[in-house]
Amino acid sequence: MLKALCMRLAHLGLSAHFVFDMTTPPITPKDLLIASAGPGGFSTVDAICSVAKSHGGRVLLLTAQPETGSTVKYADAVAYVAAQTMADDEEDGGGREKSRTLLPMGSVYEGAMFVLFEMVVYKMGEVLGESPEAIRARHTNLE
Amino acid sequence: MLKALCMRLAHLGLSAHFVFDMTTPPITPKDLLIASAGPGGFSTVDAICSVAKSHGGRVLLLTAQPETGSTVKYADAVAYVAAQTMADDEEDGGGREKSRTLLPMGSVYEGAMFVLFEMVVYKMGEVLGESPEAIRARHTNLE
Amino acid sequence: MLKALCMRLAHLGLSAHFVFDMTTPPITPKDLLIASAGPGGFSTVDAICSVAKSHGGRVLLLTAQPETGSTVKYADAVAYVAAQTMADDEEDGGGREKSRTLLPMGSVYEGAMFVLFEMVVYKMGEVLGESPEAIRARHTNLE
Amino acid sequence: MLKALCMRLAHLGLSAHFVFDMTTPPITPKDLLIASAGPGGFSTVDAICSVAKSHGGRVLLLTAQPETGSTVKYADAVAYVAAQTMADDEEDGGGREKSRTLLPMGSVYEGAMFVLFEMVVYKMGEVLGESPEAIRARHTNLE
Repeated sequence: MLKALCMRLAHLGLSAHFVFDMTTPPITPKDLLIASAGPGGFSTVDAICSVAKSHGGRVLLLTAQPETGSTVKYADAVAYVAAQTMADDEEDGGGREKSRTLLPMGSVYEGAMFVLFEMVVYKMGEVLGESPEAIRARHTNLE
Repeated sequence: MLKALCMRLAHLGLSAHFVFDMTTPPITPKDLLIASAGPGGFSTVDAICSVAKSHGGRVLLLTAQPETGSTVKYADAVAYVAAQTMADDEEDGGGREKSRTLLPMGSVYEGAMFVLFEMVVYKMGEVLGESPEAIRARHTNLE
Repeated sequence: MLKALCMRLAHLGLSAHFVFDMTTPPITPKDLLIASAGPGGFSTVDAICSVAKSHGGRVLLLTAQPETGSTVKYADAVAYVAAQTMADDEEDGGGREKSRTLLPMGSVYEGAMFVLFEMVVYKMGEVLGESPEAIRARHTNLE
Repeated sequence: MLKALCMRLAHLGLSAHFVFDMTTPPITPKDLLIASAGPGGFSTVDAICSVAKSHGGRVLLLTAQPETGSTVKYADAVAYVAAQTMADDEEDGGGREKSRTLLPMGSVYEGAMFVLFEMVVYKMGEVLGESPEAIRARHTNLE
């Protein structure tokens, strides 16, 4: 979902880059790193956020586990996405027969991110005054 | 969304591979290629589907434009996802003031695929008799 | 190897983008697409080159098969890399015992591209007057 | 270069997977993680190696800085690639005019890895008794 968000931010005319893409520049104190760790932390997300902080970048963390996650300590701002992730999809046990969850593991969190990012991009399009035509014209034709 | 579907199919214990990943084997007559072209066709999707057909593979195409798309001719089966894509997000013009679409370009199609794939994976989990625990145990820890 | 070249071109301060990266803009008549098809053609390379041409972009093709390849017809310029690829690594057959090639399939071609790209980037650094320090400062710290 | 190595190992019929590919399974005590950190360490490489160790996997680290690097502590085995990397490409300063290095930053290390991996894959093909034809037949046709 972060890849889609990154593409949409670039469509808006912003200087957006995806970590691990070929032409991503170094992060500076003027930049914001947007990270996601539904269950609260992943070793690689922690690593990238730590590097971003050490170079003066700000970090926005999306997570469903703002209390217990390992990545929170690197975040300047935390966006709490109140959705089931792999961290709590097994917690409703307790003796009774376990039924198949309709949206297992991190699916609810992924779906919540999809809706959230659409809302954010819609609002940013308004605020930046970018017309739908201008946004569309930035979409690559090499596909 | 296809990347997520591929991961979920591998979680189900199926021999699933993502085109362009490093260890994807050659396609054979026993394999099914699942392709998506919301607007009906992309040059690269056409190219991959054409190669798959020429090696005897079957092709399932997801599209919102089953009538007019260029990829349909390679498909053994077409899944019609009735959602707006880049092919028709500008069609409602006609003189009146154009308002900002809440879900622009291919967003509705992407959301529809998200829901569809969750439903398909849920059903396949039942049919294959794979328990949620077995599925979860196949998720990588290298993240 | 093209990924590495793309990164080096961005290090030089050029507006370089890798096809399929998230923030790659549409190609325009001012842009050059650098493509590689050692054996002379791949369906996806043909597809991307075709799209680039149809939008007015110029195409530089690297290949070891400039005579017979399917991609050549899209190229404004062809760079002939005289190296073995998958197109001719089996040609030396003829009855005698087949020995294991030290550099099989496309390995010689890949190695030749590595050396070629280093030379090109070195020359471009001189021409553009970009100091090694400036080049290095553009390398991402998010790794 | 690790991506190319992973592809070649899969060509040899081994169960090889690239970290971050869609279908990569969890690492187990039976698995070997091959990591590379020319300058001795990257935050993300440290993170992945740490996870691999905590799940019982073994770690082989390729590096040009076996003495000082941060990743070495996770390695069961270290392959010392004696080549210049970003860690020491600026060290030969000392008052005199700095000339442009022919192979700057990590280029020598990348080239050394290319040669090393070709040699390793050649030897493994012999040891495993995999014929060039069998190896080639595992190369994907979806490209």
